[in-house]
Amino acid sequence: MIHAVILAGGKGTRFWPLSRETWPKQMLNIIGEDTLLRQTIKRIDGFHPPVNIWIVTTKNLIQDIGFHLKPLGKEAERIRFITEPAGKNTAPAIGLAAVIINKISPDSIMIVLPSDHAIKDRGQFHEKLKQAIKGAEQGFLVTFGIKPNRPETAYGYIQCGASYGKSSDGIFHVKRFLEKPDAEKAKAFIREGNFFWNSGIFVWKTTKILEAIETHLSGLSRGLKKISVRKDLEYDILSEIYSSFESISIDHGVIEKSRDVLVIPSDFGWCDLGNWTALSDVLERDERGNILQGNSIDIGSENCTVIASDRVVATIGLKDMVVVDTPDATLVSSKEKVQEVKKIVETLKKNNREEHLVHRTVERPWGSYTVLEKGSRYKIKRIVVHPKAKLSLQIHHHRSEHWVVVSGTARVTRGEEVFDVHANESTFIPISVKHRLENPGLIPLQIIEVQNGNYVEEDDIERLEDNYQRMKKE
Amino acid sequence: MIHAVILAGGKGTRFWPLSRETWPKQMLNIIGEDTLLRQTIKRIDGFHPPVNIWIVTTKNLIQDIGFHLKPLGKEAERIRFITEPAGKNTAPAIGLAAVIINKISPDSIMIVLPSDHAIKDRGQFHEKLKQAIKGAEQGFLVTFGIKPNRPETAYGYIQCGASYGKSSDGIFHVKRFLEKPDAEKAKAFIREGNFFWNSGIFVWKTTKILEAIETHLSGLSRGLKKISVRKDLEYDILSEIYSSFESISIDHGVIEKSRDVLVIPSDFGWCDLGNWTALSDVLERDERGNILQGNSIDIGSENCTVIASDRVVATIGLKDMVVVDTPDATLVSSKEKVQEVKKIVETLKKNNREEHLVHRTVERPWGSYTVLEKGSRYKIKRIVVHPKAKLSLQIHHHRSEHWVVVSGTARVTRGEEVFDVHANESTFIPISVKHRLENPGLIPLQIIEVQNGNYVEEDDIERLEDNYQRMKKE
Repeated sequence: MIHAVILAGGKGTRFWPLSRETWPKQMLNIIGEDTLLRQTIKRIDGFHPPVNIWIVTTKNLIQDIGFHLKPLGKEAERIRFITEPAGKNTAPAIGLAAVIINKISPDSIMIVLPSDHAIKDRGQFHEKLKQAIKGAEQGFLVTFGIKPNRPETAYGYIQCGASYGKSSDGIFHVKRFLEKPDAEKAKAFIREGNFFWNSGIFVWKTTKILEAIETHLSGLSRGLKKISVRKDLEYDILSEIYSSFESISIDHGVIEKSRDVLVIPSDFGWCDLGNWTALSDVLERDERGNILQGNSIDIGSENCTVIASDRVVATIGLKDMVVVDTPDATLVSSKEKVQEVKKIVETLKKNNREEHLVHRTVERPWGSYTVLEKGSRYKIKRIVVHPKAKLSLQIHHHRSEHWVVVSGTARVTRGEEVFDVHANESTFIPISVKHRLENPGLIPLQIIEVQNGNYVEEDDIERLEDNYQRMKKE
Repeated sequence: MIHAVILAGGKGTRFWPLSRETWPKQMLNIIGEDTLLRQTIKRIDGFHPPVNIWIVTTKNLIQDIGFHLKPLGKEAERIRFITEPAGKNTAPAIGLAAVIINKISPDSIMIVLPSDHAIKDRGQFHEKLKQAIKGAEQGFLVTFGIKPNRPETAYGYIQCGASYGKSSDGIFHVKRFLEKPDAEKAKAFIREGNFFWNSGIFVWKTTKILEAIETHLSGLSRGLKKISVRKDLEYDILSEIYSSFESISIDHGVIEKSRDVLVIPSDFGWCDLGNWTALSDVLERDERGNILQGNSIDIGSENCTVIASDRVVATIGLKDMVVVDTPDATLVSSKEKVQEVKKIVETLKKNNREEHLVHRTVERPWGSYTVLEKGSRYKIKRIVVHPKAKLSLQIHHHRSEHWVVVSGTARVTRGEEVFDVHANESTFIPISVKHRLENPGLIPLQIIEVQNGNYVEEDDIERLEDNYQRMKKE
């Protein structure tokens, strides 16, 4: 059996302000029509033999990622989820997945796919994957080395050693792994020719990686064994075990120390979307080297990435810059320093702001809401409810709500009454009256909600009934 | 008699997106608490003998400038307005003011003050003004030359000639006027020492400037004579005369060609706020040379100006840049190229957008409104009505309106009814029903308006009664 394990955790910092803590970059459609996560899932489509798909993510993201996959329809139903109590980098995530998969499908092949990569040539990727699976079946840890087209300093490198098998197979033993180099070193690597970018995509047997973890990360291995011996693992116990794990990458913790590593040099149009500058490698640029998206007007900029939304973003005479505009936050950075965006996110967090955490538009299982304005004692939201969806039956203790239906039909429960409100009609929900909003129709329901009260925060909600098993947070 | 004529026209391009066509830079409080226009008016305060104040502006701005001066209270009542049918640069504006003032107060002294200057030392400004008035009384055209503290290339220069009167008076004949120099020339001017920045502030007799216009701008002079012979000048006639005027500055058209020009070297902390880069001369900078205003977070930028509003603007590693963020438009420009902002404004105009024309918050005589969101078939506004103020009695033919009172009390006229709506209550105005919103209270009234209809533009308004003599545009 072959299992693809997609790593889909993350803190939403590196593509801030488009990514947020509750909306990390794999949920963004920054390249192409679809999101990075859904692209990663589709990357396996058509591979023979068929592959089981697993997604490993953290507890705070699991529900949103579930909703996020709904557009995949039937395809989504066969995906299984593994929930980490907290993000601990890739080694614990991969170890946990290996233990769980190994239990239901012993000694099977596991493909590890980060969810923030772009791969242009899916056909060639499948070819290389087949080779890798052969290597994995022979008991090796197999990775892909990407043929570098420039002396990039943002990636780690792999140096090839001797051929494995026939030299025409194009599979090599790894001589050594190298950290992100400086410009000098990177140029030397390119000249030498047997250096490749470390792709972070791996293929191995579950048993083999668990052995390697046992050899090189004994603490993690002990915890994983505790997990593997239990029949049903309660979340609290997993959480306790997990809290003892060191936060470490599988590369640093295991692969770089192991001797049984093969590398398959590849050229399938790979890119690791590590931060904003990586976009220039995958998106088309204009004749001045710019990527201009959304409502952007530029005069004479060069080598810039401007991601606008509805608001006008005017740029003049910029060089090597990134400008990203969202409804509640804007980033303007030199490309050179853009990795420091994590410090911006830290500052926002420290100041108890929300711009690192959520977007102005928040996706919910029943639709979405957008905060249009928040003032003293009031908040205005646009709420969209999917056809046939309903919000929880709820009570607010500190606010009343005015609802104006802009399009569609709202079915409103208010106290003991149930009535329909049509487009261009409104209704009022007094403080402490239980209520529910529902879209009985076939087109989306759109309402404007004006909240009034002494306290208009999201946590003033008491859920009495919910279709989505949420009894605390909206 | 002494008359100060404040030039307050402009197209709102150079400080876009803070300035707009309907809200040019003199109405901005970009330096200090008060707006540039009100600072200019206050600059005359305490001058002896007392000075009459006139404001020359264009027809499209006159009403907003009137409302804009209300905070001056009694002071505003003594200001007289001259309305140009269209902006034609400074020569026609000054000529028109001279003709009008000369008619009611023949052969008086006229001080010309642009409304976009900063002057730090008002006391010294008054001293120099007194000297200038003496020169003007002797029949000279008098200007101020600002002592340069750097080889600035954004200003024109004046070269001093021989002393006028006693050399201790510090008044000189002008040897010549010089266009904005290149960096080389500017440095040479500074080395020579007898070069000063052309301040654009003038003092002269009305009769003298009209004579000079007659000599150097005969077309303008003929038009002004037609104006001066009429007892009552109808707007249509003025408009016709004005349309024939060439658009030209008083500097180029008259002063630079005249021989009777005196210059008073001055050092009263003058700055011409010509564009965004000028802010660095008047606002305090941090230790890295940055000006950071509003909700801005910076990491390691140098020599930058960041003007944020409520939304977070995060900047990283920028050099010599201007970033200006407003609710509906953002500008990111190199300082070097920021004068090209006028091309951005042209593009917006050409594309029939509104971001060059109005702000998301529009000031009205009765208060203000802010468009929070516009969608297909709906528009959401926050409306603030000043205590005791009322909007016009009006009808909309294509939209109904839901009003939710957020704070204060609304007196609503709807058809034949008149009733009060209190905080946290709402009401509904159906299509084609005459209505009026009024604040009968002592605190500002704040309502959220949700418009619904096939057409939700500002021009769907029929005014039946208005306290502010507006029967067309809100």
